[in-house]
Amino acid sequence: MTVNILFAAKPDSWAAYETPLKTALRDAGVFADLRTDFAPDEVDYIVYAPNSTVQDFTPYTRCKAVLNLWAGVENVVGNTTLTQPLARMVDHGLTQGMMEWVTGHVLRHHLGMDAHIHGLKGRWDKHVPPLAEDRAVTILGLGALGSACATALAGLGFDVTGWSRSPRDLAGVRCLHGDAGLAQALSSAQILVLLLPLTGATENLLDAANLARLPRGAVILNPGRGALIDDDALLAALDSGQVGHATLDVFRVEPLPADHPFWAHPSVTVTPHIASETRPASASRVIAENVRRGEAGAPFVHLVDRKLGY
Amino acid sequence: MTVNILFAAKPDSWAAYETPLKTALRDAGVFADLRTDFAPDEVDYIVYAPNSTVQDFTPYTRCKAVLNLWAGVENVVGNTTLTQPLARMVDHGLTQGMMEWVTGHVLRHHLGMDAHIHGLKGRWDKHVPPLAEDRAVTILGLGALGSACATALAGLGFDVTGWSRSPRDLAGVRCLHGDAGLAQALSSAQILVLLLPLTGATENLLDAANLARLPRGAVILNPGRGALIDDDALLAALDSGQVGHATLDVFRVEPLPADHPFWAHPSVTVTPHIASETRPASASRVIAENVRRGEAGAPFVHLVDRKLGY
Repeated sequence: MTVNILFAAKPDSWAAYETPLKTALRDAGVFADLRTDFAPDEVDYIVYAPNSTVQDFTPYTRCKAVLNLWAGVENVVGNTTLTQPLARMVDHGLTQGMMEWVTGHVLRHHLGMDAHIHGLKGRWDKHVPPLAEDRAVTILGLGALGSACATALAGLGFDVTGWSRSPRDLAGVRCLHGDAGLAQALSSAQILVLLLPLTGATENLLDAANLARLPRGAVILNPGRGALIDDDALLAALDSGQVGHATLDVFRVEPLPADHPFWAHPSVTVTPHIASETRPASASRVIAENVRRGEAGAPFVHLVDRKLGY
Repeated sequence: MTVNILFAAKPDSWAAYETPLKTALRDAGVFADLRTDFAPDEVDYIVYAPNSTVQDFTPYTRCKAVLNLWAGVENVVGNTTLTQPLARMVDHGLTQGMMEWVTGHVLRHHLGMDAHIHGLKGRWDKHVPPLAEDRAVTILGLGALGSACATALAGLGFDVTGWSRSPRDLAGVRCLHGDAGLAQALSSAQILVLLLPLTGATENLLDAANLARLPRGAVILNPGRGALIDDDALLAALDSGQVGHATLDVFRVEPLPADHPFWAHPSVTVTPHIASETRPASASRVIAENVRRGEAGAPFVHLVDRKLGY
């Protein structure tokens, strides 16, 4: 029997995903009709981006699951019309890309590369950096992305601490949890990486009080979610020298407005939300696998816990 | 019996090494008299830096070995007065530091970080880099340093090719050797890392002919030895766009003279010989182990093959 799959995302996503999704569904043995338009009551699955025009799920009466194209679900998880199972994207390309961005920027700050990239202008100014084993890196968030980054950094020799809401265990990483763990994780962080999901409990987590817990001159990397940081508190901490540098990939408003102070601040590096992007080929295989499971009566993978919000 | 060890290096090295060397010798069970001055015919071992004032080894008639403080031996290996065994430094800190510098600068170029570090000035210019698996990195030289870098980069997911004079086998790395292998290794190198020893056969290896074998726009990292590159050929290749960028840590003359064109060239990054530096604590343990072996009649480690030159 043919499975009707609605692709509910922006037109440029359709251009990127139509062919790889059809290929992945066929490879998974699913006979699918994949389209951007269906009568709502004919739809079996929705492949979904939270910025699509579909915001009311009520008419999708026979829909078995909403399969998110993005890792982040904060713009859909609170939608009260959504009663179907919701799956997040956990994509090899997304995890790998994030690990590369985080590892690269940790090494950049660790090695003090910026001085060389800006140029020493003829000064043979020799400062040998410490070894990675003498550089304390803390990662807040030990989900798929945070764990991959923590493991890669520990593999390179860094002294890595990870923090998560509930206890975790990760080889080579000092794992902390809970409120007391957070204070400890922040207090040792020469380089702090934010990879928490955005929830009511994590919004503005990096406020003035928590920024003050960092060792003076700490570097912050935020490839997670813009609203994890209180922007004004960060700017004040940068100006006072409490935070040495912030490299930010995500922002409360994107594209980051041209007049936002982050663009011009000498201690801020802006990267335009490129730390990690779902790659259509590998992401399509994740979607197709969940459709195959749904049709076979098997449990979906990467389901969102609606109460936790991720 | 007390072993007489001459420390023959610059005074600032003595300041850095005196305490860690004495500690390491004691920990190795060697009763040593370590000094910067001895009558030559009383010396049992020389801890040596090639820029020391000792250049004639003839009077050191009872010296059992010369233990180099540096990884590079090109300024001592051809010394015809040196008839004793010569050991290179193979230090954890040296290898680890090199791996960090190479991995960091490969990721920097892979991710296109320089544009973000210089600043996009308000432009939300979104280019998602390819994944590491789609980035071909070639490492010339698979000794202790090259192997560590190749293994780390392969571990991060890069498509790594290694080249060495004689055949090597390294997990996760496409190993090539010989002249035909060199042409192949160069032709695929989007990022090329030079970690060859400096010998008659490797001097000016990166000349105009070999630079022309690289894919257009390739990036060169040289943390090996300055004279591996023909400077004028590199500058010409940078000006023509054949080479996209060169990040150089080592030079024919160091400190790099303030008027050298590398300093001001927009496609060159100069780092002042910081990619790797022997760390006194770990290096002292290597020295002490060789003295212990010499006294126990055991074979020295890290001996230089005087014919090969490394």
